[in-house]
Amino acid sequence: MAKIGFIGLGNMGLPMAANLVKAGHAVAGFDLGRDNLERASNRGVEAEHSAERAAKDADVVVTMLPAGKQVLDVYTGGVLKAAKPGTLFIDSSTIDVTSARAAHRLASQADMAALDAPVSGGVSGAEAATLTFMAGGAAAAFAQAKPILESMGRRVIHCGEAGAGQAAKICNNMMLGINMIGVSEAFTLAEKLGLSHQALFDVAAASSGQSWALTSYCPVPGLVPSSPANNDYKAGFASALMLKDLKLAQEAAAAAGASTPLGAAAAQLFGLHNAWGEGGTDFSGIIHLIRGKGGQ
Amino acid sequence: MAKIGFIGLGNMGLPMAANLVKAGHAVAGFDLGRDNLERASNRGVEAEHSAERAAKDADVVVTMLPAGKQVLDVYTGGVLKAAKPGTLFIDSSTIDVTSARAAHRLASQADMAALDAPVSGGVSGAEAATLTFMAGGAAAAFAQAKPILESMGRRVIHCGEAGAGQAAKICNNMMLGINMIGVSEAFTLAEKLGLSHQALFDVAAASSGQSWALTSYCPVPGLVPSSPANNDYKAGFASALMLKDLKLAQEAAAAAGASTPLGAAAAQLFGLHNAWGEGGTDFSGIIHLIRGKGGQ
Repeated sequence: MAKIGFIGLGNMGLPMAANLVKAGHAVAGFDLGRDNLERASNRGVEAEHSAERAAKDADVVVTMLPAGKQVLDVYTGGVLKAAKPGTLFIDSSTIDVTSARAAHRLASQADMAALDAPVSGGVSGAEAATLTFMAGGAAAAFAQAKPILESMGRRVIHCGEAGAGQAAKICNNMMLGINMIGVSEAFTLAEKLGLSHQALFDVAAASSGQSWALTSYCPVPGLVPSSPANNDYKAGFASALMLKDLKLAQEAAAAAGASTPLGAAAAQLFGLHNAWGEGGTDFSGIIHLIRGKGGQ
Repeated sequence: MAKIGFIGLGNMGLPMAANLVKAGHAVAGFDLGRDNLERASNRGVEAEHSAERAAKDADVVVTMLPAGKQVLDVYTGGVLKAAKPGTLFIDSSTIDVTSARAAHRLASQADMAALDAPVSGGVSGAEAATLTFMAGGAAAAFAQAKPILESMGRRVIHCGEAGAGQAAKICNNMMLGINMIGVSEAFTLAEKLGLSHQALFDVAAASSGQSWALTSYCPVPGLVPSSPANNDYKAGFASALMLKDLKLAQEAAAAAGASTPLGAAAAQLFGLHNAWGEGGTDFSGIIHLIRGKGGQ
């Protein structure tokens, strides 16, 4: 069993760290929020009073932070100096590809191993240890990280070199955001044409219009029992997080020189959804923006 | 076995009529093109020299024509007068919802039964009798049509009242067009970020970014053996036909007062793809438009 430092014990980090404890690892945790630290302590994490102390003597340091700036601040703020050489730094935050690569470089310069390993599966996946990890970095780092990540998730995929995990996540989520708007437009058009939800679903679910957004996460109620539409659009995967990922995709596209016209439009539409106060609801609630007033 | 009049013996209509002959029906056919008529004759269709003659004495009249105008021209041009009262008119053309409903009204005023029943599956599906029919109209008309349509296809779905078949088809294909562009954008972004096609496919195919466009019809070669990308983007489903369907969706949305921002953008992008001379290639070739020059 490993000694693990865990930095960032929020909605995602806390249950992830708790699952590492459950798996028998010794976890030393740090979070800027005193409440988060106390909750972590109640779930078997040894609460430390700085990120450096959490990293000291660790075999592996996991970060789960809101954005690239925080990850780089932590890496440059003393953590890399505090850890022993050869420590594996796993960043599971969802951040921009440029910052992810910068984090790899900083770790490498300090003689550390590094992996970017963002997740999908949300808070419920973090609690149930059913997350998917998309990892970028050297094969040796991946091999070392795999059993650790498997304590927190069900699927662990090596996507390529530094930054490839972040790239895979934003490419996947860009498709998801686009597909969900497309499904919402199709149901809205069907409603206006007098075509029932059930009829469109029956045709498209078994045909070329099929997508996970339609058949596993349908934005209209009554067709897919597990979809948040049946639970008053309680997130699930919040619209604010979809907007964050679509913006990361747009940043990456701009930096890399890729044209993503529908990805850009999707970011704008989820921006509107958030501007109308719906950031906390599930992202499939975008259908309400598309439908407008007076619909079903 | 029924007496069937078949009007429109082009790329789609000819093999469909031939499959009705194979199933044992007596098929009288008409097409404005002398070559089409001769080819139909070679496959067992009785060639007639006018649409009216093909409809005379028929139990069922099938039309397979390019657009709403031609269908309405045929209906008002004497066919409805030539047929015996109670004849079932099945229009399998892909046309606008407004014209489809007008065709239903004309048939009804002439004491005929009617069904709109556009297909998916393309020329290969028409030849192999594996088409999907999406039907709109009264239950009795659908019940009468079903065994006939099953001679030409594998799935026959009753979508609702007059126009519902056309509505289902354009809603499905609008999702397909949007999803395919989204997949193309994601692969293009992945390329620019150094993420391999295989890695993105492995992540997204088993995750929330999945769609039929990705996992059954992947626009990059080497991942889905049956996809046209492996056959130099030979259609398949031509970009010109996707553009036609996306325009029909936009017409319907405008007439019904639905907002479909990504559907509109998809129509514009496939318009560009056609403007660049790619109308005859498979619609998944849209990835070349998205990628631009100098890509993979």
